[in-house]
Amino acid sequence: MVGGGRGAFIGAVHRIAAQMDGKIELVCGAFSSTPHKSKESGKDLLLPSDRVYGRYRKMFRKEAKLPEGERMDFVSIVTPNNMHYPIAMAALDAGFHVVCDKPMTMTLAEAKNLERKVKSTKLLFCLTHNYTGNPMVKEARRLVVGGKLGKVRRVVVEYPQGWLATRLETSGQKQAAWRTNPKRAGATCCMGDIGSHCENLTEYITGSEIRELCADLTIFVKGRLLDDDGSVLIRLKNGTRGILWASQIAVGEENGLNIRVYGEKGALEWHQQEPNTLIVHWTNKPTEVRRTSTPFVGKEAAANTRLPAGHPEGYLEAFANIYNNFAQALTNVLEGRKVRETDYDYPNVHDGVRGMAFLDAVVNSARSKEKWVKVPN
Amino acid sequence: MVGGGRGAFIGAVHRIAAQMDGKIELVCGAFSSTPHKSKESGKDLLLPSDRVYGRYRKMFRKEAKLPEGERMDFVSIVTPNNMHYPIAMAALDAGFHVVCDKPMTMTLAEAKNLERKVKSTKLLFCLTHNYTGNPMVKEARRLVVGGKLGKVRRVVVEYPQGWLATRLETSGQKQAAWRTNPKRAGATCCMGDIGSHCENLTEYITGSEIRELCADLTIFVKGRLLDDDGSVLIRLKNGTRGILWASQIAVGEENGLNIRVYGEKGALEWHQQEPNTLIVHWTNKPTEVRRTSTPFVGKEAAANTRLPAGHPEGYLEAFANIYNNFAQALTNVLEGRKVRETDYDYPNVHDGVRGMAFLDAVVNSARSKEKWVKVPN
Amino acid sequence: MVGGGRGAFIGAVHRIAAQMDGKIELVCGAFSSTPHKSKESGKDLLLPSDRVYGRYRKMFRKEAKLPEGERMDFVSIVTPNNMHYPIAMAALDAGFHVVCDKPMTMTLAEAKNLERKVKSTKLLFCLTHNYTGNPMVKEARRLVVGGKLGKVRRVVVEYPQGWLATRLETSGQKQAAWRTNPKRAGATCCMGDIGSHCENLTEYITGSEIRELCADLTIFVKGRLLDDDGSVLIRLKNGTRGILWASQIAVGEENGLNIRVYGEKGALEWHQQEPNTLIVHWTNKPTEVRRTSTPFVGKEAAANTRLPAGHPEGYLEAFANIYNNFAQALTNVLEGRKVRETDYDYPNVHDGVRGMAFLDAVVNSARSKEKWVKVPN
Amino acid sequence: MVGGGRGAFIGAVHRIAAQMDGKIELVCGAFSSTPHKSKESGKDLLLPSDRVYGRYRKMFRKEAKLPEGERMDFVSIVTPNNMHYPIAMAALDAGFHVVCDKPMTMTLAEAKNLERKVKSTKLLFCLTHNYTGNPMVKEARRLVVGGKLGKVRRVVVEYPQGWLATRLETSGQKQAAWRTNPKRAGATCCMGDIGSHCENLTEYITGSEIRELCADLTIFVKGRLLDDDGSVLIRLKNGTRGILWASQIAVGEENGLNIRVYGEKGALEWHQQEPNTLIVHWTNKPTEVRRTSTPFVGKEAAANTRLPAGHPEGYLEAFANIYNNFAQALTNVLEGRKVRETDYDYPNVHDGVRGMAFLDAVVNSARSKEKWVKVPN
Repeated sequence: MVGGGRGAFIGAVHRIAAQMDGKIELVCGAFSSTPHKSKESGKDLLLPSDRVYGRYRKMFRKEAKLPEGERMDFVSIVTPNNMHYPIAMAALDAGFHVVCDKPMTMTLAEAKNLERKVKSTKLLFCLTHNYTGNPMVKEARRLVVGGKLGKVRRVVVEYPQGWLATRLETSGQKQAAWRTNPKRAGATCCMGDIGSHCENLTEYITGSEIRELCADLTIFVKGRLLDDDGSVLIRLKNGTRGILWASQIAVGEENGLNIRVYGEKGALEWHQQEPNTLIVHWTNKPTEVRRTSTPFVGKEAAANTRLPAGHPEGYLEAFANIYNNFAQALTNVLEGRKVRETDYDYPNVHDGVRGMAFLDAVVNSARSKEKWVKVPN
Repeated sequence: MVGGGRGAFIGAVHRIAAQMDGKIELVCGAFSSTPHKSKESGKDLLLPSDRVYGRYRKMFRKEAKLPEGERMDFVSIVTPNNMHYPIAMAALDAGFHVVCDKPMTMTLAEAKNLERKVKSTKLLFCLTHNYTGNPMVKEARRLVVGGKLGKVRRVVVEYPQGWLATRLETSGQKQAAWRTNPKRAGATCCMGDIGSHCENLTEYITGSEIRELCADLTIFVKGRLLDDDGSVLIRLKNGTRGILWASQIAVGEENGLNIRVYGEKGALEWHQQEPNTLIVHWTNKPTEVRRTSTPFVGKEAAANTRLPAGHPEGYLEAFANIYNNFAQALTNVLEGRKVRETDYDYPNVHDGVRGMAFLDAVVNSARSKEKWVKVPN
Repeated sequence: MVGGGRGAFIGAVHRIAAQMDGKIELVCGAFSSTPHKSKESGKDLLLPSDRVYGRYRKMFRKEAKLPEGERMDFVSIVTPNNMHYPIAMAALDAGFHVVCDKPMTMTLAEAKNLERKVKSTKLLFCLTHNYTGNPMVKEARRLVVGGKLGKVRRVVVEYPQGWLATRLETSGQKQAAWRTNPKRAGATCCMGDIGSHCENLTEYITGSEIRELCADLTIFVKGRLLDDDGSVLIRLKNGTRGILWASQIAVGEENGLNIRVYGEKGALEWHQQEPNTLIVHWTNKPTEVRRTSTPFVGKEAAANTRLPAGHPEGYLEAFANIYNNFAQALTNVLEGRKVRETDYDYPNVHDGVRGMAFLDAVVNSARSKEKWVKVPN
Repeated sequence: MVGGGRGAFIGAVHRIAAQMDGKIELVCGAFSSTPHKSKESGKDLLLPSDRVYGRYRKMFRKEAKLPEGERMDFVSIVTPNNMHYPIAMAALDAGFHVVCDKPMTMTLAEAKNLERKVKSTKLLFCLTHNYTGNPMVKEARRLVVGGKLGKVRRVVVEYPQGWLATRLETSGQKQAAWRTNPKRAGATCCMGDIGSHCENLTEYITGSEIRELCADLTIFVKGRLLDDDGSVLIRLKNGTRGILWASQIAVGEENGLNIRVYGEKGALEWHQQEPNTLIVHWTNKPTEVRRTSTPFVGKEAAANTRLPAGHPEGYLEAFANIYNNFAQALTNVLEGRKVRETDYDYPNVHDGVRGMAFLDAVVNSARSKEKWVKVPN
């Protein structure tokens, strides 16, 4: 693991998620850019001190020299955005498979470089767009991509949060500090941090791509340097039109990612905060409430469920599904089988490129007087 | 009443709403442009045959000659959109106060003419934007306009319906037929019919006005001549930004008008299909569920409520509130008191002008390559 | 109308409900046992003063002498419980059909007398168990009685309110005062006032009868003379077992009547505060959300609906359905057709007897050490 | 771990829960009464074969001989009910702390013996009544026991499930087979399996005890030997009255544990299927929606939360909280500190005795003609 030391949020999430199903074990880490802090964090995690590194490059070098079976099998990158790209490139160069947090890079150009690198190294690359790990998101994709709802016409995807409604970044809150800092977060805060989940969720469920968009980004909190709110009109390749919005100043909202997809024959609705429910509307029968782990959902959802119906699975379980699906591919690679990464149900490097292309277009559109901006291929 | 004969939907609604509180009685009508049908409709309504007219102009002429106390006190116009303007102008010219369905006219120019006419005749004019009759909408306005939520930053207003997901207008369904017919509905179907409620609700609750917008209108159903779906980015005078969308092809949606308003200190959420609930978020205390007829709502809501808490009041009751508030103004006028229409809590002719200005801008924006189109004053 | 003068709650409800569909008109009344107050109330209602009576017996006598077409067609009794019986008996004796509020009488013996009187006079008798007027309650009955859910096993019916959590009756609140007064309310407050709705709703939806029960009644508020809370285990004729509870001290609850019915093949759930939704579970398909006015409900629900889907109909509309269905029977009688009252969908005198038998058993059980008390036939 | 081999449900849950926070590691197990199956299960779990035992007694014997730091620190008992008692007694006799699934034993007498044994050995004993591990349950307890709701008057606790609506036990489903078998489950199925959670939740949140009750148990599915449904009137020591019911034949219900508590000044409502929400009603302010991980809940809830608000934590996380709280006590014991088990927030052996006393009274009441049966002390 790179990043995720004391005081970090997402590092702990990755650790719980990775280990949930007993297939992945934390064996080493460079938990902080401050070597001392990395060491302390390693102690907290009960790691032997010789597997706790002060620098990620050193870790890659040393681990690569350890015998197979002992050395780490892959790297998890859980740092702020600006470090994803150099670490991922270094890991791939050192021969390690990569799990990386999102957004994948700082720029679209980096993303494309990284995609080329993954292709050339033939190593695995998993991007933790965790929300697509939810069983009912997989059921939604099954219904939409399988044509059950008919041709899709409209999508509405939202991600309201309220935690940045005040200038939290000046209070010492680390999560707020780096996300609002252009040097660490990139050209966008709100859209990069959470709007990117909207994009990924939309493309995952519809199986189509956002082709053009019109964005209105706003900085509501005085003194802040990056957007904390944004609304985007979107048009997809398959003719779907819709709305994507995200906000970090939506007071009272916690983590309200949700999506509605309307087709010619049916429609659906999913809310991240009640993740085990998928509302499905039909033109020819009453609205259905499909639920995780019931006999009424497809095998994709079932394969990503651990418990009987009514035993709520949440954020960590969905996150663990990403790792679990990655672990299946990894196991096959480690056992010498040929693996085509797109056969596995986890976000890969191309999803990362899509995300950066979307953000690139959003930022350009926000500055433009033209109504529509193309999302670059 | 003009319009609302057999087979009409909104005419019956107006009649129930107007009579609910025992203050208004239907005394005459020209219920259809087909005189025979008007007569039959009058019989259904148990009206004496000499008060059922074949033509509205005749009704205005005859009724105006009846002695005070016997003649009608005001006209309700419940026809398709294209007839609102000529009937309203004629009614005002004949000296009658007017209640008129929305959208008020076919064009912004007509709307402005009508506003001038109302001003010059000094007669009352009530526009039945019925959803603002809901007690919890009034509570929302009280909280927002009263500053309880702080400066407003974002608004999201939606009106999804699914009833026009197929080409219903060719099946003989009258409601669908006129609404999708440019000659009877005007330059827009979806935005005019229901998007206009979004606009009115937004301006009523925020006390501000939409200043510029960016619209994407779509005709999803083949062969249809007017929009059945639309998304609009909006910017308000007070700095609020947001999204307004409406759709008639949103399969599974019934009549899903809803609004969310996010301010610096609080936020709120109201759904028309559960109209007696207002969700209110705060930065400094837990989310509240405010409910109609509890002691925890303001006097504006209380004044528009008939029943104890938990006895659901719905669409007809909200509609009746519009009539009831209009009846208060009317009673004062009839009893010779001076009345300033803006002192009363019902939508007036200026709200109708605002609505037409909004629709004008939406239609222009949909055809434009410019990102932002101003809403004319 | 008898009762329902100034300050009363249910009288106004009856008036709005009765008149909603334009079939029933208030023509006379004895609105209060205080003649002066009756007169004043009549004025409020714009009735001619010669049709406003100080005493109900006088009203029956005078009205009976008016010519047909002019005299009242039926009586609505909206007084406190203790007056239902004498007024209903007098009305029937005077040849008037009766609409009466619930519970029907003070004792089971009175209820049986009244049933005999109705039978012997062959007049119509409608008991306003208003909640069964809801369209989705009718859909529930259709599913259950029609066998769609299979043999019913368990029912849970609840009616929590919180308005009597303190000793409101000493504050001058009239509704609280008479309901907690044994002389006016009878042997029970909470069970009589709202538990009786639970009984009626259960028997209406299941088409079966409560055969035996075990009740625990409580007076939580000091100084109060009648129960303000009660829990009842119930067993139905058809083998169903279940729970019925009602409370007036359930702080925070408004008017939370709800019912769940579990059969061998399906189950359903209805909440009065969201009356247009019926949740239906199945063993072989996902849970459904059936909604008023959609094509997915039966003709019984459709016949009791005024508006398109998503236009919420509430308490008054459901109440109006009782009157409306009664008006259909009445019209047929007035037009000389033979009418069998059980062919019409409104609660009749036998439902009133069932209600009093239930209350009789509940009160007896609450005092008994025996586990099970039979509900008398 | 004893039990939890291949095909078991709750064993896997215990393993994920125990390991979630990185404080507990599975080191050995006797996973099945069939030694071969135990070995195979051990392999699945990647345990060294010498730590996988065919018999639990052998495991206790061998492990006890291992050096400190290497031998297991405590035993988790995750077998069917009939084995809890002998294994727990043996584990305590062998000097091991115990985590045991519920219900604790087959009889009240066994439960009391076990309590005496725990006291005499001074070892720790944790009973996995997992639902009390939910943060919002802890918030509920804080509000009630802290007196915020005033004196409690009524409680309603429910646990509907539908999975045993047919005779699943004859189909080879192992979970159904043992739970409906009196030799393995004890004197009750539904009440023992899930009614016991209702009892525990009620006593945990109210801080009081059920003193007497009146139960109606039913076997709805033909051929079944134990209750699959039951309703219980309850009276608590503190004067609270209420209802407790559980069912396994409630078609469409998944795992619907929920509780409502009504006090003099406030009330609350919690649903296990949406565990991160606690509805709180007040007499003097609007209803609140309290949510996990917001600043508006107490330290007890906060201490049992891993993620920011809106990141749903579910069944496994609540279960992990039980283990986590037990691990705190265990760590203190292992590090030589004196520990009073009641200072820690997990269910202990006395809660197990309470549960068995409740079940004892329920079974007696179901067979009795007396209305009220005391819960033995």
